[in-house]
Amino acid sequence: MSAIEGVERLLAVEEIKSLQARRVYAVDSQDWDAYRSCHTEDFISYTMADPIRGIDRVVEGLRKHLEGVRSIHQVTSPIITFTSAVEAEGVWVLRDRLWWDQDGSPHWLYGWGHYNDTYEKRGGRWLFTSRKIIRSRVETSPGARISG
Amino acid sequence: MSAIEGVERLLAVEEIKSLQARRVYAVDSQDWDAYRSCHTEDFISYTMADPIRGIDRVVEGLRKHLEGVRSIHQVTSPIITFTSAVEAEGVWVLRDRLWWDQDGSPHWLYGWGHYNDTYEKRGGRWLFTSRKIIRSRVETSPGARISG
Amino acid sequence: MSAIEGVERLLAVEEIKSLQARRVYAVDSQDWDAYRSCHTEDFISYTMADPIRGIDRVVEGLRKHLEGVRSIHQVTSPIITFTSAVEAEGVWVLRDRLWWDQDGSPHWLYGWGHYNDTYEKRGGRWLFTSRKIIRSRVETSPGARISG
Repeated sequence: MSAIEGVERLLAVEEIKSLQARRVYAVDSQDWDAYRSCHTEDFISYTMADPIRGIDRVVEGLRKHLEGVRSIHQVTSPIITFTSAVEAEGVWVLRDRLWWDQDGSPHWLYGWGHYNDTYEKRGGRWLFTSRKIIRSRVETSPGARISG
Repeated sequence: MSAIEGVERLLAVEEIKSLQARRVYAVDSQDWDAYRSCHTEDFISYTMADPIRGIDRVVEGLRKHLEGVRSIHQVTSPIITFTSAVEAEGVWVLRDRLWWDQDGSPHWLYGWGHYNDTYEKRGGRWLFTSRKIIRSRVETSPGARISG
Repeated sequence: MSAIEGVERLLAVEEIKSLQARRVYAVDSQDWDAYRSCHTEDFISYTMADPIRGIDRVVEGLRKHLEGVRSIHQVTSPIITFTSAVEAEGVWVLRDRLWWDQDGSPHWLYGWGHYNDTYEKRGGRWLFTSRKIIRSRVETSPGARISG
């Protein structure tokens, strides 16, 4: 048995899929207010060796990371598991592409991997509480300033 | 509150996702009757500078555009918003690849972007009423006759 | 009318999408027990010229095929059709990438196509009963030992 069943589970799954879609659109359109609104204040990013704690610091890092960068993320095949009626974990396939200019030359990153997310329902809305990107492979242009 | 809630909303979302899947399969298999059946008669394409009005004209343009072309579209991460119980808007991530021969040489287009769709429920079925492709990036083989 | 309607249909569709996601994750993480558990014992693969009958033989073939290979599958746009309350067919868009070393050199396969799946609900769970991959295109590194 899951911690949440039937229509309640379907509504939660659809809301989490929609949350992921809005996050992806926000990052690719660099709409940082929309991005922030998909996460809890105490969101933790486990992608780097040292966790980044708090959505404000995560957004600040992303904003710098993606300055002048065009990106497209494809995020597919969610496996969503409910650990309670208001907590869930999600695994997704990630395919991302970044393009930017660096010293007047075009550069790129092509990445593949998985997201390991956690979510919580707070104030009636599902939000991201943490994220870890596990890379399968990254390819970059020679000399690219972004490497992962 | 959304214009449509609970199970009714879930059924509509699933039907719109399935509609998109059938449209994508129809275009990649060049089944123009199946393609047409996903759209209203008065469907409008806003992708070119001048809108193309009417599904017949859109299909005629696509048929020519894709003659001798093999394609694969990946369409992911829908953000679906209901503006009434029978009207909706959808934003999706698009990744398309086209391959064709031209003067005896292989050519290709790799594209990335977003679909901005509208839908209506007519006669009990959700259908596309308009579409706009907003390109993030297009790469083509040198000299390719298809550019976007 | 579909063979299954309303909430029952939504629950079945979501379970089949989740089944596909778990299968994709299992193959890309080479977790063969998890992979096996997504299929019926009498599962048939129609991908090769001669069908492979039985999930044990299919897993044995895949395990060899992917030994030393890193893979990412993107599987999108399902068209799911119920032929009874406990039987369904699914068409999906497939995009796969494989990377491996061969005689000390890096090799790769980039593939595109469609899955044609069948599913059955047995013992209360939806499972794959057959699969056929229909390739639109495959590109490989020169001399690649894997070709499709």
